[in-house]
Amino acid sequence: MTTTVPFQSDIEIAQEASMKRIHEIASALDIQEEELEPYGHYKAKLSLSVLERLQSKPDGKIILVTAINPTPAGEGKSTVTVGLGQAFHKIGKKAVIALREPSLGPTMGMKGGAAGGGYSQVVPMEDINLHFTGDLHAITTANNALAALIDNHIQQGNELGIDVRKIVWKRCVDLNDRALRKVVIGLGGPMQGVPREDGFDITVASEIMAVFCLATDMADLKQRLSRIVVAYDMQNKPVTVEALGAAGALTLLLKDALKPNLVQTLEHTPAIIHGGPFANIAHGCNSVIATKMAAKLGDYVVTEAGFGADLGAEKFLNIKARTAGIKPEAVVIVATIRALKMHGGVAKDQLKEENVEALENGMENLQKHVETLQAFGVPFVVAINRFVTDTEAEVAFLENWCAERGYTVSLTEVWEKGGQGGVDLAEKLLQVIEQGTNTYAPLYDIEASLEEKIRTIAQKVYGAKDVEFAPQARKQLLQFAGEGWDKLPVCMAKTQYSLSDDPSKLGRPSDFVITVRELKPSIGAGFIVALTGTMLTMPGLPKKPAALNMDVAADGKAVGLF
Amino acid sequence: MTTTVPFQSDIEIAQEASMKRIHEIASALDIQEEELEPYGHYKAKLSLSVLERLQSKPDGKIILVTAINPTPAGEGKSTVTVGLGQAFHKIGKKAVIALREPSLGPTMGMKGGAAGGGYSQVVPMEDINLHFTGDLHAITTANNALAALIDNHIQQGNELGIDVRKIVWKRCVDLNDRALRKVVIGLGGPMQGVPREDGFDITVASEIMAVFCLATDMADLKQRLSRIVVAYDMQNKPVTVEALGAAGALTLLLKDALKPNLVQTLEHTPAIIHGGPFANIAHGCNSVIATKMAAKLGDYVVTEAGFGADLGAEKFLNIKARTAGIKPEAVVIVATIRALKMHGGVAKDQLKEENVEALENGMENLQKHVETLQAFGVPFVVAINRFVTDTEAEVAFLENWCAERGYTVSLTEVWEKGGQGGVDLAEKLLQVIEQGTNTYAPLYDIEASLEEKIRTIAQKVYGAKDVEFAPQARKQLLQFAGEGWDKLPVCMAKTQYSLSDDPSKLGRPSDFVITVRELKPSIGAGFIVALTGTMLTMPGLPKKPAALNMDVAADGKAVGLF
Repeated sequence: MTTTVPFQSDIEIAQEASMKRIHEIASALDIQEEELEPYGHYKAKLSLSVLERLQSKPDGKIILVTAINPTPAGEGKSTVTVGLGQAFHKIGKKAVIALREPSLGPTMGMKGGAAGGGYSQVVPMEDINLHFTGDLHAITTANNALAALIDNHIQQGNELGIDVRKIVWKRCVDLNDRALRKVVIGLGGPMQGVPREDGFDITVASEIMAVFCLATDMADLKQRLSRIVVAYDMQNKPVTVEALGAAGALTLLLKDALKPNLVQTLEHTPAIIHGGPFANIAHGCNSVIATKMAAKLGDYVVTEAGFGADLGAEKFLNIKARTAGIKPEAVVIVATIRALKMHGGVAKDQLKEENVEALENGMENLQKHVETLQAFGVPFVVAINRFVTDTEAEVAFLENWCAERGYTVSLTEVWEKGGQGGVDLAEKLLQVIEQGTNTYAPLYDIEASLEEKIRTIAQKVYGAKDVEFAPQARKQLLQFAGEGWDKLPVCMAKTQYSLSDDPSKLGRPSDFVITVRELKPSIGAGFIVALTGTMLTMPGLPKKPAALNMDVAADGKAVGLF
Repeated sequence: MTTTVPFQSDIEIAQEASMKRIHEIASALDIQEEELEPYGHYKAKLSLSVLERLQSKPDGKIILVTAINPTPAGEGKSTVTVGLGQAFHKIGKKAVIALREPSLGPTMGMKGGAAGGGYSQVVPMEDINLHFTGDLHAITTANNALAALIDNHIQQGNELGIDVRKIVWKRCVDLNDRALRKVVIGLGGPMQGVPREDGFDITVASEIMAVFCLATDMADLKQRLSRIVVAYDMQNKPVTVEALGAAGALTLLLKDALKPNLVQTLEHTPAIIHGGPFANIAHGCNSVIATKMAAKLGDYVVTEAGFGADLGAEKFLNIKARTAGIKPEAVVIVATIRALKMHGGVAKDQLKEENVEALENGMENLQKHVETLQAFGVPFVVAINRFVTDTEAEVAFLENWCAERGYTVSLTEVWEKGGQGGVDLAEKLLQVIEQGTNTYAPLYDIEASLEEKIRTIAQKVYGAKDVEFAPQARKQLLQFAGEGWDKLPVCMAKTQYSLSDDPSKLGRPSDFVITVRELKPSIGAGFIVALTGTMLTMPGLPKKPAALNMDVAADGKAVGLF
């Protein structure tokens, strides 16, 4: 949301945009007519056959956009991602943007929308922020169909001997609804099912979302769905979707959703928006199929991962890239001077004041993420998303700080100027890619124990002194090894606000210990979630939800998305 | 589902169909390019501006397809509806079919699909039976967003003073899930909301579905949403969506869904499929907007209403037609000899045996529905949906029975022969329409009391001796009159299997009393539901759900929809 007078709001800019018909965007990518399924005039699904047709074509270069630890000051990672894609087009490079799909929960709750900002937005912004092409609804439905099949299985005799106290599959809605976090279902007598504790997650936290985003094709989707562990039986052995016989139905419910969605930016740069798992309970990246298709269609792919580099980029580089055989060529680390000042101790209402000292203190947060990317061996560029309140002294300090350390830095103005505001960033990325210094490798050996993997992430990425495992987690380490689940990658569930597991510790905390409370097997997704602190998998609505300002204007346009 | 060897299954026929591109179907209806929003190549949404553009064009003639009371033998009402539309095209008439959207609940549960059958199907059958264009998902989301806003309102201080024991708004899923019928939500402590009893309905039972289907335009949709009563406050006064400030957001969530969906039949007859409220708790007809648009686009509209004439047709003629200012020109009453024999006392496994005596006994069910339509003053044709097991003697008896009474009857073979099998029916309909004997009028005066309206329906449509009101219903009659709700039409919730409120009484029961247990205000939809017997608004899954046979074949086609 912007309240600055001379600027238009994001939704005003988006609604005034002159979009090209989606078949024009598609034909610029040499997508064939039969591969394009239009959803209205400005959105389309792309057939999975695109991947087959272009199998032998070399992949475009993948650029990952990540950020420092988020603060209430905002970083604008999505805006930079969109702006960078536009910037590549400005300098004559064929780039495709690959983003996550927004969830209605935050849209109706706090945010009112998520599709970049200013003159670096994907459009049609209204559609993208509402039901889009229905992918999240398909995932919600598959999630809840599975839940209904589990409870029906128990009601109809429980052949598999499911222990109703040990059902780990939760229902979901794509909304913020705290009242559904903990519920009791099956009440009302023998005709209404078996009473038990249950709970709802937001759809983006469903394992089906993670499965959907890591699947490489329809067959792999079905395989992954089959492996999902939904419960444990009376002998404490895992009960899977395969045992329930539900994998075919879930695949059927997801078959159209699995096709990536093509839209455009305000400057007609193609953007594929597909899948959007939570970056805490899951891996926080758009779908593997979308990223791979973008790499077949473009010479450069600009994609992002959720939250800061300690969460999204770590998971992109350790989970998604490894699983999918994707090699990122460069990383953009987005920061704002405002946010760095918050990491340096400034309160939110003081951010407009020049404060070079606080900025200097806050640089340690950026420094840690730089070190993380160096550990992965991927070249990087620091992108400072410029705000009008940034002073010359602050900017000069920052440029000097980067120069002293040999870090490539670019000031971007993509919010205000669109692609033109990111040309410098795009050119610097081309330079770092051309240097050929990329030695990308995941940070841990997949064959290492779960404990070792967690320790590697905590120490090398978070800068933790040590990792402690709560008794429950200790027990699970043994149990999971017994099930053969210890050779999977680890998906850390940690606060996004701090490098540590304490959201109040900004900057670069040191001398801290990460406590792993519990492990959660996401066998379909193919990772083990390590829970640190309390992770909410169902957000609540604020006192004044964004929904209360929403409406449809007389001309049919959306009101209250921003 | 058919197991007869020489025939293909419905899904096989549908998947082998050669469809026309949807823009071809649209241009045959003179729909302009900007009015068509394609969803893939074979589905499209139609802009509401079509209604404005054709405002002064005379409406096509509306033909309602209804049936005798359903039995496990099956009647094929949707198949006759689709076949009749095709038949009109065979004889050179411009007809548009208007149908309800299937719900995923029954699809995943018992039925495996609902889009006509044999050579009288709407296609793409797979899409129609799965997520289609997402309308039901939009309705589910709007329903649950409202629920989340109610619970959030209470959690954040409960300014409106909502009595948590008197929240009547339930959550929903578009699935059969008995374990959600009665639940307790808001457990887990003060951060997780206020504990209270709740329950989930299937989406088609949501009042938002009924509102959606009765709205005449976007502004009317918002008005109706505003009026929905979600709870009562501490003074027992109704709390509405308007008071919560949620009408704009709900309208926004529904704005694209409100556009009717265009598809085609196997013979390329245009079909508009839009909205699908339950025919018990709601009025069981497709959307008013779809019916009106079909009437603008075609010279004849073939539409259907849920269950038998005692439920669907009664509600079409007393609620939908009155509310929307629609005048039906003729009604088709669908029956099968098999089903009439069941009404005459034959068990399901004996239906293949010739039994003219049972048929004769069963005719009284058809006779009652004929009398109902005569009471409404609408011309009708009896359509016998022919089965291979029907014997010559049975057919002869039936034709003779109709001839003796002066009823027009047509034997249709639309399942096997498509439109050609319904040409006789189409021609007979044209004849009864041309006779100009239509004196259609609703059965009751809208100004009559709720009690009088209910009595009129029970006596004139069901043939009941009397109506009894349980104490709760009596109390509500007074309360509703006090709120000014007594001038609304009545939507009866009654078993579909019998003319009475006892599902075991087939044929034409007499000397029975209808007991109204409770009333339910659907103020947004604009009717008062009168509950007789126990109405399930959330179905359960059977022992072997259809879902367990579903899959995606290697070529990407759906398996297990039939």
